[in-house]
Amino acid sequence: MPPVSERVADLRGRLAEQRGSVVLGLVPTMGALHAGHGRLIEYAKRDCGFVVVTIFVNPLQFDRPEDLDRYPRTLAEDLRFCDRAGVDLVFAPTPDEMYPTAPACRVHVQKLADHLCGRYRPGHFDGVATVVTKLFNIVEADRAYFGEKDAQQLAIIRRLSRDLNISTTIVGVPTVREPDGLALSSRNQHLSAAERTLAVALYQALCEAHGQLMAGVRDVGLIKEAAGSRIPGVPELRLEYLEIVDSEEMQPVDEVKGPVCVAGALWVGTTRLIDNIQWNP
Amino acid sequence: MPPVSERVADLRGRLAEQRGSVVLGLVPTMGALHAGHGRLIEYAKRDCGFVVVTIFVNPLQFDRPEDLDRYPRTLAEDLRFCDRAGVDLVFAPTPDEMYPTAPACRVHVQKLADHLCGRYRPGHFDGVATVVTKLFNIVEADRAYFGEKDAQQLAIIRRLSRDLNISTTIVGVPTVREPDGLALSSRNQHLSAAERTLAVALYQALCEAHGQLMAGVRDVGLIKEAAGSRIPGVPELRLEYLEIVDSEEMQPVDEVKGPVCVAGALWVGTTRLIDNIQWNP
Repeated sequence: MPPVSERVADLRGRLAEQRGSVVLGLVPTMGALHAGHGRLIEYAKRDCGFVVVTIFVNPLQFDRPEDLDRYPRTLAEDLRFCDRAGVDLVFAPTPDEMYPTAPACRVHVQKLADHLCGRYRPGHFDGVATVVTKLFNIVEADRAYFGEKDAQQLAIIRRLSRDLNISTTIVGVPTVREPDGLALSSRNQHLSAAERTLAVALYQALCEAHGQLMAGVRDVGLIKEAAGSRIPGVPELRLEYLEIVDSEEMQPVDEVKGPVCVAGALWVGTTRLIDNIQWNP
Repeated sequence: MPPVSERVADLRGRLAEQRGSVVLGLVPTMGALHAGHGRLIEYAKRDCGFVVVTIFVNPLQFDRPEDLDRYPRTLAEDLRFCDRAGVDLVFAPTPDEMYPTAPACRVHVQKLADHLCGRYRPGHFDGVATVVTKLFNIVEADRAYFGEKDAQQLAIIRRLSRDLNISTTIVGVPTVREPDGLALSSRNQHLSAAERTLAVALYQALCEAHGQLMAGVRDVGLIKEAAGSRIPGVPELRLEYLEIVDSEEMQPVDEVKGPVCVAGALWVGTTRLIDNIQWNP
């Protein structure tokens, strides 16, 4: 098993022994590790001599208390997962260790958080940006790895890094999918068998949008209409959004002229799933 | 003359040569250096083997455009000042280097910015916290030095450091005063001779408050009344605020029970001056 730190000071002490002699990689997670996280670790291991995985379900980024309560917590399994993946050190702090008092200074995300998930999850990306800034400062890694599945999060963290002159290099890692195309997510484990079958509709809608773009359609209204038609009209499914935004600033476009991100959020029963594809003309 | 970096990448390159071998000190300033800054540098030199002074008039922290335009800029003199003070490296970036695009991710300060200057300068402390976070990330110093004259700023930066797990140690440095008690400030150079004479009223009001506290008065209303009476009723002077707040959270108190900061802002003609004293029962 990799050593586990629960305290910032302990982690810093362990990292001090490594610093300067190896490339230090950081993989921030909320645990409930799956093959998507495995891919992040794999990328980190490829580049870095010492890989730290953080496991912290960050209360600050949950807009709904029931979502925070329900979020899967599987630390013992996660540690075995990290062991198999060759992780060098796990940082698994308590909420008190990360937030001894409610933070009076937080990172606030403008513009890039206005649409997609940011529109439906007030404060979510402020919470993400704040905890990621804290983890960057705690670990002081050379490189940090984030999944492309959370496209808006990745765009915001890239921007955060530039805006605050964070010296850690941000690396985006491609989404890992089930054979039918469903993006891996810790939330998938909430799905019943019937919901699991329906859940692939989100990926199919994104593929439809991709097909329209490949066929030369540039009108976002038309693309969204075609994509939305792939979501079956059953009571278990509710499309929260399906938007086409520019890949850098995450702003909706009317017509596709440059690199875009087609992103959607689909409620499957009481579980909210997100996915996206990037398209570059 | 100390070497001057205008670019982040250049600065980082120069610092990389020092890192690990010496204690690295950071003195963030907006230039127009005076003996108060000299004291910061002196403290830094005492503790650190390599001292970086940053000179940057941060547009993000100015709530009034005319104040930004009017803020003194004296780089050539500042460099000579740094040379005499034994500074090892000066970082003097352009606004474009610090903000190549308007930052979409900024530090937002809650609660601690609600009163005193924060109440009268909307967004000011968000701008301060954002630029200081950037400078911390750029320089990655072991220790950073801030004047106690800006008491609310210092309290916020201490809190910022804790909230975002910044590893740089924050050091507060006592205020340097003119013989009559006026706190040194880059803004003092805006004062006419007559205004300069009147300006000491702010310090005298703080001393009156201190005298009341020493005499055992604990009722904040009484203390403020006595202190305010020390501001002459002349048209050149306007007391913006004089408040007594707890030293940690910067919240107004009705009765003095623990460590407090007595802080005031006084307009002298078109120049706004601030000052404070700490009091610990």
